[in-house]
Amino acid sequence: MAAPLSRRDLEFLLYEWLDAEALTGRERFAEHSRETFDAVLELSEDLATKRFAPVNKLGDQHEPYVGDDGKVVLPEEITSGIAEFIKAGLTAGSFDESLGGMQLPTVVSRASSAWFQAANAGMSSYAFLSVGNANLLAEYGTPEQIDTWVRPMIEGRFFGTMCLSEPQAGSSLADITTKAQPQDDGTYRITGTKMWISAGEHELSENIVHLVLAKAPGGGPGVKGISLFIVPKYLADGTRNDVALVGLNHKMGNRATTNTLLNFGDGSHSPTDTPGAVGYLVGEEHRGLSYMFKMMNEARIGVGFLATALGYAGYLASLEYAKVRTQGRPVDQKDPASKPVPIIEHADVKRMLLAQKSYVEGALSLELYCSKLVDLQQTGDDDERSRTGLLLDVLTPIAKSWPSQWCLEANSLAIQVHGGYGYTKEFDVEQYYRDNRLNPIHEGAHGIHGLDLLGRKVVMAGGAGLSLLTETIGATIERAADNSQTDDTEAAEFATQLRGAVDQLVAATATAWSSGDPAVALANATAYLEAAGHIVVAWMWLEQLLAVGTKTGDFYDGKRAAARYFYRYELPKTRIQLDLVAALDRTTLDADPAWL
Amino acid sequence: MAAPLSRRDLEFLLYEWLDAEALTGRERFAEHSRETFDAVLELSEDLATKRFAPVNKLGDQHEPYVGDDGKVVLPEEITSGIAEFIKAGLTAGSFDESLGGMQLPTVVSRASSAWFQAANAGMSSYAFLSVGNANLLAEYGTPEQIDTWVRPMIEGRFFGTMCLSEPQAGSSLADITTKAQPQDDGTYRITGTKMWISAGEHELSENIVHLVLAKAPGGGPGVKGISLFIVPKYLADGTRNDVALVGLNHKMGNRATTNTLLNFGDGSHSPTDTPGAVGYLVGEEHRGLSYMFKMMNEARIGVGFLATALGYAGYLASLEYAKVRTQGRPVDQKDPASKPVPIIEHADVKRMLLAQKSYVEGALSLELYCSKLVDLQQTGDDDERSRTGLLLDVLTPIAKSWPSQWCLEANSLAIQVHGGYGYTKEFDVEQYYRDNRLNPIHEGAHGIHGLDLLGRKVVMAGGAGLSLLTETIGATIERAADNSQTDDTEAAEFATQLRGAVDQLVAATATAWSSGDPAVALANATAYLEAAGHIVVAWMWLEQLLAVGTKTGDFYDGKRAAARYFYRYELPKTRIQLDLVAALDRTTLDADPAWL
Repeated sequence: MAAPLSRRDLEFLLYEWLDAEALTGRERFAEHSRETFDAVLELSEDLATKRFAPVNKLGDQHEPYVGDDGKVVLPEEITSGIAEFIKAGLTAGSFDESLGGMQLPTVVSRASSAWFQAANAGMSSYAFLSVGNANLLAEYGTPEQIDTWVRPMIEGRFFGTMCLSEPQAGSSLADITTKAQPQDDGTYRITGTKMWISAGEHELSENIVHLVLAKAPGGGPGVKGISLFIVPKYLADGTRNDVALVGLNHKMGNRATTNTLLNFGDGSHSPTDTPGAVGYLVGEEHRGLSYMFKMMNEARIGVGFLATALGYAGYLASLEYAKVRTQGRPVDQKDPASKPVPIIEHADVKRMLLAQKSYVEGALSLELYCSKLVDLQQTGDDDERSRTGLLLDVLTPIAKSWPSQWCLEANSLAIQVHGGYGYTKEFDVEQYYRDNRLNPIHEGAHGIHGLDLLGRKVVMAGGAGLSLLTETIGATIERAADNSQTDDTEAAEFATQLRGAVDQLVAATATAWSSGDPAVALANATAYLEAAGHIVVAWMWLEQLLAVGTKTGDFYDGKRAAARYFYRYELPKTRIQLDLVAALDRTTLDADPAWL
Repeated sequence: MAAPLSRRDLEFLLYEWLDAEALTGRERFAEHSRETFDAVLELSEDLATKRFAPVNKLGDQHEPYVGDDGKVVLPEEITSGIAEFIKAGLTAGSFDESLGGMQLPTVVSRASSAWFQAANAGMSSYAFLSVGNANLLAEYGTPEQIDTWVRPMIEGRFFGTMCLSEPQAGSSLADITTKAQPQDDGTYRITGTKMWISAGEHELSENIVHLVLAKAPGGGPGVKGISLFIVPKYLADGTRNDVALVGLNHKMGNRATTNTLLNFGDGSHSPTDTPGAVGYLVGEEHRGLSYMFKMMNEARIGVGFLATALGYAGYLASLEYAKVRTQGRPVDQKDPASKPVPIIEHADVKRMLLAQKSYVEGALSLELYCSKLVDLQQTGDDDERSRTGLLLDVLTPIAKSWPSQWCLEANSLAIQVHGGYGYTKEFDVEQYYRDNRLNPIHEGAHGIHGLDLLGRKVVMAGGAGLSLLTETIGATIERAADNSQTDDTEAAEFATQLRGAVDQLVAATATAWSSGDPAVALANATAYLEAAGHIVVAWMWLEQLLAVGTKTGDFYDGKRAAARYFYRYELPKTRIQLDLVAALDRTTLDADPAWL
């Protein structure tokens, strides 16, 4: 079995490009070193390869079910693998040492996580959802809440979830109906139904800490009325809380992660005489969504990583296959007596491999770049915090949606490279494809991120977000355009091409909003999102080319070839999409539902 | 459950556009009428809807297995549904009356089949593979072979297969190693292993007629040495032939169709003392591939229909869902107290529906157009036969590959419209997506059709194929450009756009071949294929617009909106692809496998 991720590429991205080592010059990371980073990464590679990857198919073929005792049953190999992950201390990643964490840079802990996501997507989500939950509570919880719920999550004894969606309200949080009734003792009683809750029930941890959005009395309508609550499966004293598993969803992929329909306060496990599950308010009432955005933004980067990791695993699997599978001859060698060649010799197979490489390595660079922004935001001075925070805000919809689209496409190409074999359960790639199809759906459906990007992120603060993005890309273009610095005429050529695309993006943004009518401006927000995504990833490839510089060898030539592929085959697509945005095309807006 | 196909659209395409009724003016179809066509279509709709669609999930969830007695077991509902299909006489479709067929135009029998493909892809393939097999033998078999094997297939008592691929040779038929040894009695003994054989084993019919490519002594190397044989599971006298099921492949989708690894002549069921399965030569020795192309070309159109039918079923399912599911509000209506709207009101959902509509109705029109070409070729004078045959040759790689790519994309959009629900097994769309992922792989992998189109079809006979295609498209453009005829300025605008795309296609073809080096010319053959496909489907949409003319009503406005979507959102993509072809881009050609 091919490795699910490339250690060499991670090293290049972390050390030759992003200079992760320099982070140890910051106080927060001063006790770390390249050696401690590498130790975590090597441990992750080892554990992911030995305990997660070998049971990836198992988790797919034996999806979780509810046993006679009402408990969720997972294959023993999944349970014990996760236990080993916890024992290795990998739930402690980037948390403060004072809370029992390793205080690693996020860019390193995310790279560590990517090994597990690539090895076994479904198995990896339990712990990583928990990290997001604990990060939120570490920031907004009271000291008592942190001691009670966060510390056990950092230790890996408790796992956490995020409970937003409801059966009638997936993307539309304004319409949630779960209610929170305040009690005299300061707690709340929560009643309602939550849908699509990943890791919502299992026996992998002593407790499950649900973070639940609900409406407390006195809030305004819509999202303004939403508050955030801790609703644990078991109260601190061990009493069962009134959180009941209604059912498990049966999915096309990502099957090792339980996905649940949960009832809160339906009386199945009432801990008190007052109806409802016991909940503890996080922060202030009616400000729940703003807190939840902390976890949602993290989860969006997490989904970007997950999509990337699945794409990467598929790329490496199809690369390995293409090297050993022989079939056919080059198009200019038709002598049937000649020996068949490995299929990697065929131009169209190389196209499918280069496309995958440009997608998955481009996506990984974007996710790591965003993760480093988190580190800079956390440790910088005020100016740096505000700049990196703003840039991260603008990039988040892209970091979520771009890999979800293109690393899924990579998985489709990985199947195609395998031919009929790729369509069978004997190989891994069909599962990657099914697993990855989830990612454009959850944590904000694809179209939602277009509305977020064009409707909010690029126009907020008078367009400061877009300006910052274009300035930052502009700085890379400047460096690449300066041949004398890079001795690379190709980078200079790509820099010119990228500048044209960025200029068109800026112009299209202005034109989209020229009427001031959101319905018109946002009619082609998805095309805008996808074009912006390609431009950002082209920027990432230019950054990588600059890090490659004049270095020699197959690895660096591979980076050059993938960058070339992206600039010649992919970036030109943005012209068409941005033309559409700038034309204020009303085809979809004006389509009468009765015509469909 | 939504209907899997649209009767209204079929009627529009068959009667308002393709004038299928006019075919009854030809001698072969003189005994038919609109009434007999409609009777077959209504019977098909009824049977597909009542007996095939309801067991689509069942066939997916209970894939065929080999029972203790070595026989393949399918769910009883699948077996009985197929029996009912046979009883209704639908295996007789377009075959000659003299052979027991209905002598229907192919365009009508393909439309009939599409109902079953849309209702239950996996269940439909048994009979339709058989039709292709019987068509080949009806043309190239001896009268005795026709009596023995074709008549029972037309009656539905026997089913047929095509056995081309081998484990080491999927797309590369030159490398097959199955051997045919001539015997004194004029029969052959066949030995070898065939892989990926759909419907290769089952108990649905009294007998299975395999058409097997094998190498007889004395043939040249490569494809020139290939001969074609009838190798039945049971000989005419009922003796078991030496064809053994080695195993069933377990697939991501299309699971109700058995997909088999077969051994020929391994001694499991030797009917004689001479080793090998008994085979009967079709036509002459060493000309087998030319005969097999008859079935392969038919199967390619069949795959195009299958991909289209799955795309169509997904479109209609997501359309129905989008009309009833309420969520969120229009982007210019943010009052959270207002009621959520059906999601079909959102521009991005309309985009996903229009995209699907433009793909699936565009694909269906292309497949029916090609089917009508078969009818014209079969019944026309020499000139018409040669013109329609040539046009069909050029269109076949597109008719196979375009729906395989874009109706799969339609299925992905159908999932996306459903949100999380679409990812679950409770809804139908995830299965359509898995089923459809097969289609870019079988009957010539996607890339093979690029080589076929750019490497052969558009250059054969001094470029006559491309000239005929562009002339035929040009005639449509002429009609559309003439406003006075259509009273439709939009059609005239699209005609101009299409003319530009066709001109670029012609120019790119010449540039690709300007060096005369096939490796350079074909380096971007897939981009060429995809661009040509979009141009051909844009032509189909212009044809449909002309058939719509000035008619009024939602149905016709829907056609206009889908055509508009295709011209504004899709056709412009070809510019980028053809620029790449014309640049003779060597990125993939020059990529060293060591870089990947």
